[in-house]
Formats: sequence, C-alpha cells, structure tokens
Amino acid sequence: MAGVTERAGDTAGKAATIRDVAACAGTSIATVSYVLNNKSRYLRPELRERVLAAAQELGYVKNAAARSLKGLQRGILAVLVPQFGNNFFTRMCVEIEAVAQRAGFVVTICNSDENPVQERAIIERLLSQRIDGCILSPALSRTESAALLERARVPYVILERTMGTAVPDHDFVGHDNFQSGYIAAQALLDAGHRRIAFLGWDSPIANINDREQGYRAALAEAGVAIEPGWVLTGSLSEDEGRRLADRLPVGQVTAAVLATHHTMAKGVLMSLQDRGLRWPQDLSLVLIGTPEWVDLVRPGLACVERPEREMGHAAAALLLEKLKRPDYRQAKLVLPTRFIPGGSIRPIKIPETSGANA
Amino acid sequence: MAGVTERAGDTAGKAATIRDVAACAGTSIATVSYVLNNKSRYLRPELRERVLAAAQELGYVKNAAARSLKGLQRGILAVLVPQFGNNFFTRMCVEIEAVAQRAGFVVTICNSDENPVQERAIIERLLSQRIDGCILSPALSRTESAALLERARVPYVILERTMGTAVPDHDFVGHDNFQSGYIAAQALLDAGHRRIAFLGWDSPIANINDREQGYRAALAEAGVAIEPGWVLTGSLSEDEGRRLADRLPVGQVTAAVLATHHTMAKGVLMSLQDRGLRWPQDLSLVLIGTPEWVDLVRPGLACVERPEREMGHAAAALLLEKLKRPDYRQAKLVLPTRFIPGGSIRPIKIPETSGANA
Repeated sequence: MAGVTERAGDTAGKAATIRDVAACAGTSIATVSYVLNNKSRYLRPELRERVLAAAQELGYVKNAAARSLKGLQRGILAVLVPQFGNNFFTRMCVEIEAVAQRAGFVVTICNSDENPVQERAIIERLLSQRIDGCILSPALSRTESAALLERARVPYVILERTMGTAVPDHDFVGHDNFQSGYIAAQALLDAGHRRIAFLGWDSPIANINDREQGYRAALAEAGVAIEPGWVLTGSLSEDEGRRLADRLPVGQVTAAVLATHHTMAKGVLMSLQDRGLRWPQDLSLVLIGTPEWVDLVRPGLACVERPEREMGHAAAALLLEKLKRPDYRQAKLVLPTRFIPGGSIRPIKIPETSGANA
Repeated sequence: MAGVTERAGDTAGKAATIRDVAACAGTSIATVSYVLNNKSRYLRPELRERVLAAAQELGYVKNAAARSLKGLQRGILAVLVPQFGNNFFTRMCVEIEAVAQRAGFVVTICNSDENPVQERAIIERLLSQRIDGCILSPALSRTESAALLERARVPYVILERTMGTAVPDHDFVGHDNFQSGYIAAQALLDAGHRRIAFLGWDSPIANINDREQGYRAALAEAGVAIEPGWVLTGSLSEDEGRRLADRLPVGQVTAAVLATHHTMAKGVLMSLQDRGLRWPQDLSLVLIGTPEWVDLVRPGLACVERPEREMGHAAAALLLEKLKRPDYRQAKLVLPTRFIPGGSIRPIKIPETSGANA
C-alpha cells in the first residue's frame, strides 16, 4: 500500500467524470453506469472490478451523485437520535443511510442522549455547517429543536417521537405504539391468560403511554379488570428493570407485557433467572421490541417487532422529497407493528373451548 | 408548550453570556458557573433548576464552551466507524462524545459500513464542511482516508484499526488484541483444558489475526500442539457463526475461544443450543468482547473485556490535544484488556495438581 502522501491524487483538483472512469477502465460510459448503479450482475466480474478500481482511483463514485445535487446543497443530511447505542435507533439509521447514499448524500448521526440542551447545541452547530436536511427524533419529545430547524428553513422530518399538536404542520414518521401494546396483550389473552401485568418506562414520551393504553384496551375488550399492582413503571436502567421484576406479583399474574427500554427488559429477565423463575412455566412474556438477544435467550421471546427499517426508509425518502419540493408536507405516517411468536407464552386453555380459566 | 415560531428567540442574535444567564436567573455569575460546571451538589435544587432554565431559555450552555474555541474552528468533530450498530464502537463513540462535549465540541458520527468507497465519500463531504478534527476507524484497515485527512491538514486519530507502517507517523489508539487471545486461552488452560478451539473472523483486519496469535502463543507456552480443525474462521454473519459451530469438533475439543464478531458469536451459541449442547458441560467457552447479552444467557459467559470507554476517552483527549498543538504526535497507545470470569468454564483439574489431564 502506498505511503500516505502519494495517495488520493486528484481529490483536490477537478472531480472525475463518468467519462474519465470509462477511459481509465478502458470501457464504455454505459458499462460504467451499469456497474456504478449496481446493475452489473450480468457483466464479467473482471470488468466490474476494473470499473470499481478506476472509480475508486479517480475518487469518482459518490461525487457522481453529488454533482447532481443542487448547487447550494452540501450533500449532508443529519440524523439526531436521543439514544445512540439503542439498536432500535441504529437500525433506522442504517436504513436512512442506505437511502441517502443512493441519492448521493452522506449522513452524519448525532446523539442528544435525551438531553434537550445538548440537542440544541448540536442543532445550532449543524446549522452553522449548512446541512441540507435533518431527521430528528427529539430528546424527551420536546419541540425546541424543531423550532430551530423551522426558523433556519432547513427541511426536517420528525422520527418516532411525536411532538403532538405543539408544532402544527410537521412531517412525522413513526409506528403504532397503541397497536404494540394491544397486540402484545392480545397474544396473551388468545393463549388464555387473564391476569396480565404491564411493565413500562416512566418517561415523558407519549409512546410508552400509548403502549399502555393499547394494553388497557385489549384487556377491557376481553372484559378483564386490571388490578392494582399490575401496571408497573420505572426509570431507564437495567437495575430498574430488576426492581420492576421484583415487584411483579408472580403467581397473582400469569403473564406480562414488557413494554420497556431493552436495557430494562434485560434487567427483568436477569432478575427472573436469578430467582429461579422460568418463562413460560412461571410467567408468560411478550416483549415489545427486538433487541439482539430476543432469540438468544431460551426459550426465545415472543415479541412485537417495530418496523424499524421501514421507518428509516420512509423518513429518508420523505426528507429527500422535501429537499426537491420545499413546501411538500406529508403530515403523519404511522406504520404498523407485527407480532412474532416465541416460546415464552404458555397456553393455559384449549383455544377451542370458551370462557376464561385463568 | 409554545408554538414552533415563538421559540428559540435569540439564537439568531448575539449569543448569551454567563452574565445574561445570571441576570435572568436572578443570581450571581459564580453560582451560574457552579451549576453549569456540575459542581452544584450543595446548592438548593430550586436555584439549580432556575439557572438551568435560564441557560436553556437563553441558549447558553454549550455556546459558552464554543466561544472559547479558536475563531477558525467550527466546533465539530467527526467520528467514522466501520460498523455502526456494533456496541463495541457505540460505547467508544459515547465516551468520545462526553469528552468532546466538555470541551465545547459536538460530534457527528458516520458509518462507512466497511466500505472504503463510501468512507472516501464521507471524508470528502466532511472536509468540504470544514470539520475541526476526525477520529477514524478505517474500513477494512485501509489507508486512503487517512491520506485525505493528512492532505487536508485536518488533525485525526486512528482508532482501533491499525494501519501498520503504511502511514508512518499516525496517532493511534487501540487495544491489545494479542493479549485478548492470550488471556482467553490462558483462562481455559488454567482450568485444565488442553484441547481448545479458536473461532475467528475471516477479515483483512490485523486485529483478528493478532488474537489468533495470542491464542497460539498461550497454547505453545503450555506445550499444547494445535491440531487440524481447531482453528476455524468464517465471514461476518449470524449464519456463518452457526456454520462455524457446526464444524466445531465438540468432544475432540473441550473448550473454545470465541474471537469473532458478536453477531457470529450469537450464531455459535444459537447453534449449540439448538443441538442441545450446553456450556460449560459440553464445551467451555470464553468470548472476546462484551455484547449486551453476555450476562443474560445462562450460565453467563466468561469474557475478555476490551477497554472501550478508555479507548474512546483517550482518542478524544488526544484529538483535542492535537487541535491545540497541530504538530503534536503521540505515536501508539495500546490499552490492555481484562478477563472477566463467568459460568461458561468447567474446571477439569484441581488447580494444585500438576500435569495435563485433558
């Protein structure tokens, strides 16, 4: 590999064109275009490699897309998430990146760490850099950062955390939290459970409350009264998850919906394991969310999958549309969630029979 | 909550000073300084809240640190990682952010996705934005991006992925991969194991090879010859982890070092579970790395902890030092790893006796 000063010859000079790449690779412009648009399945692999090597050598690829951007654009989209390190956000970011990249943009990801003051500092710094657009998942669902973007006339999309009616016209991409809670409880009701607890996260964010409302609605429809001590909430930490599990009236309830942050859910499972309680024998479980370990613990957990990739895709596509048409508004897009069966639910009645026997 | 157009009154105007915050909160400059530097433990909580509210209202806090930056700086540091979504990198990023934030910088995180072409596009775009500095963990350990930063005279630190001697003088922060492999194997040797497999990741990155060399050294020192089929490598996926586990000569070996990507390690464990093989009864395990599930699976895994936070801290501190003194060079900083015991190792001899009885 060459020494550091001898590489990257022409990035400081004029950007290479597709013609340059074709000349360097000794092939046609059409072939280069095929390869760079990933349509080269039917080309000889050597030719594909040669084109990619030439494009890399000349610093082409991404600039090609960048050149098609409007003159005033920087080619940078920012994504602000409140929980960097939460796979739920990571998976959305990866999809946002993929969509943005195809359109010639690079994505920078910033972490507000659920801190509105930090979020404001980030937004101000990003604005001074002239980002082209922003996907924002507001810390604690607050509205100040959206206001900053609005004033700066930077197109933005709110992701996952609704700001409600406080900001009237904003574009929003999220998923159906009410449905999450509803189908999680429904799966347990379908298996014959009637004594179902709900573990949540004490948070100012509406999403968690929506999940609880979904759980309450499912139980109400089944004619089940929720008893005191069945709905438990705590703050965001593994230890707090352990404490919630310790307060669970196991025996009184036969099942629980875990509608917590994945770190809390982990604490719940660790506490159950430490006390020798097994799922589904001692307690049936449905988890809202799909952390990496959901199918690694045994039995694997039944869970509610949130449409992470679809949300990322939709948010990025919407932002790109807004870059083309600054007055474009889509209002709200709320995507559905999906139940995934698992070994953590014990059926306690034959589905054919009628009547509850919890 | 106020409507979007009425917020963020003065961010477009002159930045608020600490004096403004003190006036707005009706307290002294000293008190404001106390609060904003998190030294307010002994102040009345109401006063602390009032100061924070005033600082937030005036858009103060982070600007204070930003004002102390040199005039030419933008207050933005970039971090490029090759695997966004890998907790190993996430944890380093969180620490980098914490250090940068205290110094008045915000951090943007970009993901090369192990793709050197994408990495180059990101670096070029970041350079056009005038970032102040960059922490780079190069995709596939390649050197082109460092060359771009070098040419643009942007201070940078290479994190985790060494570029070897290809780029002579670069600053590097990493951890001791040889030691990882060595102490993992040593823990198994100490427990009396002599037939120890090594599962790795087929990668052009030197780190994985270094871990294998550590494993080989530990076995060589113990006088154990490594037999064919004990060292297995595969590409990065959960399925590939499963395939590696299927090829493991369980019975012939009594233990294994998992020196893979966490996704592969998950595949290994899932395959073992699916085949009814238990750790440590059927196979003792030591994992290099600490994914979230390491203590959630039961028994919890013995593992080698990499100094993620320390690496992030050191890389950020080094970059900040280089911003102050552009000709500052620190050469290499290689931090040690640490063995963490777990229930996944079965002792197969009394430690006091001598001689191998595997």
